[in-house]
Amino acid sequence: MSINTKEFYSDIAAKMNASAIREILKLVQNPEIISLAGGMPDPETFPVEEIKEIVQEILDKNSARALQYSGTEGLPELRECILDHLAKDNINGELDNIIISTGSQQGLDLVGKVFLSPGDIAIVELPSYLAALNAFRSYGGELVGIPMDDEGIKMDILEEKLSQLKSEGKRVKFIYTISNFQNPAGVTLSLSRRKKIIEIAHKFNVFIVEDNPYEKLRFEGESIPSIYSLEKNGSVISLGTFSKILCPGLRLAWILGNKEIIKKMVILKQATDLCTSILGQLIAQNYCQSGKLEKHIESNVEIYRRKRDAMLGALEKYFPSEATWTKPQGGFFVVATLPEYIDTEAMFKEAIEEKVAYVPGSPFFADGKGKNTMRLSFCYPSIEDIEEGIKRLGKVIKSKIKK
Amino acid sequence: MSINTKEFYSDIAAKMNASAIREILKLVQNPEIISLAGGMPDPETFPVEEIKEIVQEILDKNSARALQYSGTEGLPELRECILDHLAKDNINGELDNIIISTGSQQGLDLVGKVFLSPGDIAIVELPSYLAALNAFRSYGGELVGIPMDDEGIKMDILEEKLSQLKSEGKRVKFIYTISNFQNPAGVTLSLSRRKKIIEIAHKFNVFIVEDNPYEKLRFEGESIPSIYSLEKNGSVISLGTFSKILCPGLRLAWILGNKEIIKKMVILKQATDLCTSILGQLIAQNYCQSGKLEKHIESNVEIYRRKRDAMLGALEKYFPSEATWTKPQGGFFVVATLPEYIDTEAMFKEAIEEKVAYVPGSPFFADGKGKNTMRLSFCYPSIEDIEEGIKRLGKVIKSKIKK
Repeated sequence: MSINTKEFYSDIAAKMNASAIREILKLVQNPEIISLAGGMPDPETFPVEEIKEIVQEILDKNSARALQYSGTEGLPELRECILDHLAKDNINGELDNIIISTGSQQGLDLVGKVFLSPGDIAIVELPSYLAALNAFRSYGGELVGIPMDDEGIKMDILEEKLSQLKSEGKRVKFIYTISNFQNPAGVTLSLSRRKKIIEIAHKFNVFIVEDNPYEKLRFEGESIPSIYSLEKNGSVISLGTFSKILCPGLRLAWILGNKEIIKKMVILKQATDLCTSILGQLIAQNYCQSGKLEKHIESNVEIYRRKRDAMLGALEKYFPSEATWTKPQGGFFVVATLPEYIDTEAMFKEAIEEKVAYVPGSPFFADGKGKNTMRLSFCYPSIEDIEEGIKRLGKVIKSKIKK
Repeated sequence: MSINTKEFYSDIAAKMNASAIREILKLVQNPEIISLAGGMPDPETFPVEEIKEIVQEILDKNSARALQYSGTEGLPELRECILDHLAKDNINGELDNIIISTGSQQGLDLVGKVFLSPGDIAIVELPSYLAALNAFRSYGGELVGIPMDDEGIKMDILEEKLSQLKSEGKRVKFIYTISNFQNPAGVTLSLSRRKKIIEIAHKFNVFIVEDNPYEKLRFEGESIPSIYSLEKNGSVISLGTFSKILCPGLRLAWILGNKEIIKKMVILKQATDLCTSILGQLIAQNYCQSGKLEKHIESNVEIYRRKRDAMLGALEKYFPSEATWTKPQGGFFVVATLPEYIDTEAMFKEAIEEKVAYVPGSPFFADGKGKNTMRLSFCYPSIEDIEEGIKRLGKVIKSKIKK
């Protein structure tokens, strides 16, 4: 007699289900299909030779430490290194303001763990990063979405919503924003809105969680000071990562915040995975200190800019005039919006028949809308595949347009 | 005006505090102090040269994959490899019965996440592994402790307690046991009790979580079939790890269970850290397939056996007759019990003055008892340091003995 496993799930686990899309994408293994779905960096951007050399040196000189357990906070040398780099962006922190996380996904998990009791509210952008939404949901957080335009999250609606939630006696813990080249929308929060969101956060006494994986991948225009660097009361948490500037395989990222919350996160991380791989931390630290990171990022920016240009050019060429799309100044993603009568989830099967994949937009919307949107990634496929993929997709969409 | 961070903590985060001991141990940085406190493997046991070679080969041939994101379930090749090894211990599973975790601590975190809603009960051994207790507490789990003797957890008390909890309408989700060379006690659950615990788990309809990091580090005696291999209804979760047989720095472990619960864990892990480092997974897979793992484990066993012998010999020689201690057949730890009037937490300061450190036992006891016990680790220090450390500690204890 088998045990009835379902009866044993926690309330939260019972509610967490595999996304339909993730299940569909798993089935997309046909190499003839061009995938504009994944958010994986281009492996061309991985500094393989340098990493090889660094690993050898670490294992020659420092293996007893590199293969051992390490402190939950993360290596002091690596944290120093990151702080040195951030100082150039006017972020001034001390060692106790930073904790290393096992990828930014763990950062999001720790944000959920430290802030959210069941029923607490997290404000999120419409649309937003799916795995962040799921991390917050996995602590019973309720998500309230605020729409965006070309300058990011709309401040009037944000303020209105916070007023309303306050009058309803709801407990809002934080506003979650991906401030640069947002995933999925590709939108960047403008400087004036960064100042405004701080003002609003102070007025309503809530934290801001600024997720910033793509900041350094800016193709054009002036970089904008981070919310973290603009705010002075310690109410911003900032997440940064090596996944997009070095490689994701090390699972290496960091969290910045006031000392009290970082200390609490260390206690919570201790129970979550004890420590992040010290080997990975030493690789990143050595790479940072080699002085090659800045040049490396510049060459990555070149690669992704060309891909972004290829995608925007192809969209112009192959998508019907009824479609619109974001024009990101950096990052990995474009969101396209189709006429409201087209459901991109329903259309997915036809796209696969035409041998092209994307991510339907609805799961990125905390309010369940966005059914006529899709995320298109230019990070991983080649320029030829981007062009051909958008061509195929344009054909599918055009067949859906009502004349 | 600074934000009042404390007001923002989740109910659980507010309750999780740094252990006093962890804070004390951090201060113990004086190299003259011999530490019998840590649970770190001896770096002598790390196969550094082999790992160096393997990393080079991976980065030469497979870097685009090795440095990329990977599947949440873990590499199929590595899971196959682990299953092949486990088959020798009569564990027969398929790919969908196993998920790779970022160290066994993540396994414990996922166990908490999948099973425990606030107020749900986890049965634990008295004493038990502190970071497991904290992982379960971090989901609001209530811990009920059952005492052990030389054969492990006491079955009559376990059954009685389960009856009582049932009659009180309490929801018990699982029994957590470290079946071999327990941390901290060093005790091994006997075969007859393994059979009995399965019977009891079936009778009361609860899961068993078998944590098994030390199984392969047996110094003497016959190995005992795992609870997982003995049970047939799918109600056992088994945690295994590379930390003690290869090295902890890769943060690499696995969870075995019925397919339904593993599938749910994959969904939860997706929101926790997306995936475990594929570079680490490829290193472990290549090492496993090199056929060197078995020989390597044998030589590790030799190293730890000598250290265990040194510690047991020194305890005999230097501890007062009023003290007793466990005699582990494997693993990393001994627990010593002193007369009830000696509080090992209060004594810690004096031990530090004598330049020796240990872990006071009380935090390992879910019921807050065990104040006269201490955990002594023989895994990390040299044989000379074990002898000298126990000598120093014996002196401190003897000064406390009432005549």
